[in-house]
Amino acid sequence: MISSLPDAVEALISELTRLPGIGRKTAQRLAFHLLKSRSEAPRRLAEVLERVARDVTFCPRCNNLSEQGELCTICSAPRRSSETVCVVETPTDVLAIERTGRFNGTYHVLGGSINPLEGVGPEDLALDALFARILEGGVIELILANSATLEGDTTAMFIARQVKGQDIKVTRLARGIPMGGDLEFADEHTISRAIQARTDFEG
Amino acid sequence: MISSLPDAVEALISELTRLPGIGRKTAQRLAFHLLKSRSEAPRRLAEVLERVARDVTFCPRCNNLSEQGELCTICSAPRRSSETVCVVETPTDVLAIERTGRFNGTYHVLGGSINPLEGVGPEDLALDALFARILEGGVIELILANSATLEGDTTAMFIARQVKGQDIKVTRLARGIPMGGDLEFADEHTISRAIQARTDFEG
Repeated sequence: MISSLPDAVEALISELTRLPGIGRKTAQRLAFHLLKSRSEAPRRLAEVLERVARDVTFCPRCNNLSEQGELCTICSAPRRSSETVCVVETPTDVLAIERTGRFNGTYHVLGGSINPLEGVGPEDLALDALFARILEGGVIELILANSATLEGDTTAMFIARQVKGQDIKVTRLARGIPMGGDLEFADEHTISRAIQARTDFEG
Repeated sequence: MISSLPDAVEALISELTRLPGIGRKTAQRLAFHLLKSRSEAPRRLAEVLERVARDVTFCPRCNNLSEQGELCTICSAPRRSSETVCVVETPTDVLAIERTGRFNGTYHVLGGSINPLEGVGPEDLALDALFARILEGGVIELILANSATLEGDTTAMFIARQVKGQDIKVTRLARGIPMGGDLEFADEHTISRAIQARTDFEG
């Protein structure tokens, strides 16, 4: 049995399977879909990818995604407060918080969390840039929105220790039962944390 | 709320959502994954897409995917018999049949099926090329592997009528209960067809 596909198509399929959650069958389906329009769809996608490769950089202030080395859309928005800085792991986290429409401060994107097992140390994250921002002054509150994981906690702890003694309020996102979450499906850690951190209830 | 993403990233996400089965969230995840390696991964994918757009053509004999206008890998393989031609709708169908390793003939890829509701007529398919191949002579059997759908049946019927009177054996893929298929889950059309087309059984 010989492969009935041209090398170029095989190359495209194997490149697509590198993407997360895309197996061989899905990659094939995507490749054939792109080929349906002959060269038009592949070329259009190639163009936006080239543009992303060429133009997308990281915000020199907060390390979020940005374009052509400029400040990101949030850091350059005049209405956003730079007094409250929300520390997150990834640009996806920024999107998630923005979606709430409830946060008017700025962000700092670390680019991950400290993870000794995977060889990620503090020097691999955008921590120097964060501490430099704080030294510049003007930051009143630091919200540590690192993930509620061992690595996220370690990173949050590391940051909290570094800024200790400076006149900055350091907070961490609340943990507990998620909204709409059925107690039955919550894990024991979440429940025990929710019990410890129980709040007064006005009936 | 302003979008926290650079325009180039938004453009990439919206281009990815055009792909089948890829919603906004998946497109975001794919885009961020591509961006993780900065410009490397986007550029590599852009390159294979450019190559596909530039090089992939259709086989001048069977209309399967091919490279740079040449005969496809199957039509140019000396061991494949051009006496048996298997008519399919798409290059994916070729892959599916090749995977069985049981077919040694050649293919003819129609590029779809006759579908008046979607405005696809016989002239939109690679039918002229098929009839030209038959007129050239040398085809002994035509296997109509069109889908087991109304459109597939219509197209198969159309082809069978056109070649009627010529000394060619015309066959259609067998239908029935799929291998490993539980009768309980088969639809009534499949079952009634399987009953009509029941075969002798040697116990």
